[in-house]
Amino acid sequence: MNLTDYVIQKASEAKTAARKLATVPTAVKNAALSAMADALEQREAELLEANTQDLAAADRLSAAAKDRLTLTAKGIQEMAAGLRDVAALPDPVGEVIKSWKRPNGMEVKKVRVPIGVIGIIYESRPNVTADAASLCLKSGNAVVLRGGSEAIQSNAAIVRVLIEAGEKAGIPAGAITFIDNPDRRVSSLLLKQDPLIDVIIPRGGEGLMRFVASESTIPVIKHDKGVCHTYVDADADLAMAAEICFNAKVQRPGTCNAMETLLVHEKIAASFLPPLLARYGKAGVEIRGCPKTAALAPGVSPAAESDWGTEFLDLILAVKVVANLDEALDHIARYGSQHSEAIITKNEAHAAQFLQDVDAAAVFVNASTRLHDGYQFGLGTEIGISTSRIHARGAMGLEELTSTKYIVLGTGQLRE
Amino acid sequence: MNLTDYVIQKASEAKTAARKLATVPTAVKNAALSAMADALEQREAELLEANTQDLAAADRLSAAAKDRLTLTAKGIQEMAAGLRDVAALPDPVGEVIKSWKRPNGMEVKKVRVPIGVIGIIYESRPNVTADAASLCLKSGNAVVLRGGSEAIQSNAAIVRVLIEAGEKAGIPAGAITFIDNPDRRVSSLLLKQDPLIDVIIPRGGEGLMRFVASESTIPVIKHDKGVCHTYVDADADLAMAAEICFNAKVQRPGTCNAMETLLVHEKIAASFLPPLLARYGKAGVEIRGCPKTAALAPGVSPAAESDWGTEFLDLILAVKVVANLDEALDHIARYGSQHSEAIITKNEAHAAQFLQDVDAAAVFVNASTRLHDGYQFGLGTEIGISTSRIHARGAMGLEELTSTKYIVLGTGQLRE
Repeated sequence: MNLTDYVIQKASEAKTAARKLATVPTAVKNAALSAMADALEQREAELLEANTQDLAAADRLSAAAKDRLTLTAKGIQEMAAGLRDVAALPDPVGEVIKSWKRPNGMEVKKVRVPIGVIGIIYESRPNVTADAASLCLKSGNAVVLRGGSEAIQSNAAIVRVLIEAGEKAGIPAGAITFIDNPDRRVSSLLLKQDPLIDVIIPRGGEGLMRFVASESTIPVIKHDKGVCHTYVDADADLAMAAEICFNAKVQRPGTCNAMETLLVHEKIAASFLPPLLARYGKAGVEIRGCPKTAALAPGVSPAAESDWGTEFLDLILAVKVVANLDEALDHIARYGSQHSEAIITKNEAHAAQFLQDVDAAAVFVNASTRLHDGYQFGLGTEIGISTSRIHARGAMGLEELTSTKYIVLGTGQLRE
Repeated sequence: MNLTDYVIQKASEAKTAARKLATVPTAVKNAALSAMADALEQREAELLEANTQDLAAADRLSAAAKDRLTLTAKGIQEMAAGLRDVAALPDPVGEVIKSWKRPNGMEVKKVRVPIGVIGIIYESRPNVTADAASLCLKSGNAVVLRGGSEAIQSNAAIVRVLIEAGEKAGIPAGAITFIDNPDRRVSSLLLKQDPLIDVIIPRGGEGLMRFVASESTIPVIKHDKGVCHTYVDADADLAMAAEICFNAKVQRPGTCNAMETLLVHEKIAASFLPPLLARYGKAGVEIRGCPKTAALAPGVSPAAESDWGTEFLDLILAVKVVANLDEALDHIARYGSQHSEAIITKNEAHAAQFLQDVDAAAVFVNASTRLHDGYQFGLGTEIGISTSRIHARGAMGLEELTSTKYIVLGTGQLRE
């Protein structure tokens, strides 16, 4: 079979499954998710063996990439726990979002329905396979999974286990469709299947995002970079500010919602920055500061223009002393990526202005940007943090994986 | 200036305006919309003169296309009335959609914000210019308008009037940005401005939809064709069914929500179809029927396979007698375009099955598909009827022209 036929066949299998899956009862979906979780645990050896094959072929990868690729017994337990969490969440399908009556007597309802077929294009982490499959299944969507070629044995094994357990529990064949051909041209072809795939969610680095945006004729919900700022106002509780700033940078620096640039009001910079920078230093954080920052503490490298606006994803922090809130807002508007932004202040007017003016998926007052997360927000779990401005923005849970349909109940109404 | 620079400059002006427009108060937007409505009426002569120029250059257009292009005094009054209607609608920006508290004490709110910059690519009808500009303005979005080259003088004149009145009333320059270069390559370039334009809404025929889907690197909300069915069940109120079927086909056949195929249960076909087909005949409707339909009434042309699934947009109707609800559902799944579908029945179980199984933007019980419309649904007005499955599906009003932002109010919360 040529590559085009292969891709169309895969996408068609998902499309056929999607129509059936849309009306599968919640109880069947939940039982399937539980059975899939059990199967992952029972077939741990098979998954670890597949992962060993991927790792053996991963000589040229960086240590960080190998780390993301590695599957452990603990990782498998976490995937299974994730599936059980999704089973426990409410089913969004069928929910009546709104309902109203028109003067002519007709009743209009807006109800949640699955989107249809969701394509996930992702890089090395094999746990995305189970997370994405479970969220799409629970929200009634068929999923087409296209993982990184370096994880193909691991992903194929996870999908095999999920499909076997799922189909036994009543999930239609094709509901979880895995692209098992690592040929790079397959991704381009997949992105052209707009009659068959309804939305593409890319998970990965900037190169992947650019590739998807330029190739796709299917709508894309981007999961792009986070250049997140924390602004410490002159009126901040400085003890709270120090804890939040430390948490936002250090707790898990490789994530999109970690702080990359710290902005500090000049009035409190001299008292606030030296102890905080010392604490960062002990935690191994490299500081790239503006001249005022450098004058306040030892060991600060001068920040280059390119440091503002860089997503370090590492123990590196850009620090700038600003004259006031307006300068902070301008800096964020110029260098931010509209992901997660925070102000630390006791001044309610400043907080209100920050909330109003900052254009980002999530804006925080007196909290760590690291809290921008589906689980932390109470959405149960998330498929990711959307940096798109349409359909869903910020943490995306099950609801955000649905579309809507209008239902109209009439008694003979006509268009006049 | 070369074309690329021209397009980037236009899109940048809109982007700059969008940031300002996002925080313009409701009262200012409403006063601007009123002033714009007044200005359209006051400068009627200027608009009609521009339209005369377009019509003079439109020799090669069909009569229907010329009709769509023609602007009349009545049409200008309707545009002005449309602007005043939009002024009277509630402002969606700032609405708190949801608000909840997490166990760690942080308060999360999901609030409506403008999307940013909306690109509208449309064909000949000049009234789209005023409708789209007003809806985007009220929802806080800057708009980039790219109309058909055959309407360029009319569109330019409308935009000139709107901008002058709007800016005097406090709307930032660039909020309504008009692409005044008719070069066809400009559309392709516009569709690549993904850092500057947030969403594209195409309004027009299939050729435009295909062009936009293949060229755009910006998310697209499609407004595509409607192949709408009405299924008359064995348990229908036949008098009601006849009125609905006549309305759905004849009231305005050139619209996307008009019925294109009538499906009739075989048990009632012999009593239901002959009088209805006679009435259609008097109204000038050409019937293309299945053999069973042809056997029931004179003057029925045999339906070709291609008639099922065709959007006639004209006084032509395909008619098929089906054995039961399941055959009707299968026919709709195979030939429908997921736009607007109706069942006429007194049987609640059949209605429920139809509502559940039919995958369409709007599904009707005992009402005309022609009612799928923002105004009819009570949304005030609409930018169109989305056939996309993400962001907005079906009738799109002001709410559907917004995005969201999470607001988090904390007291020092960290990520554990």
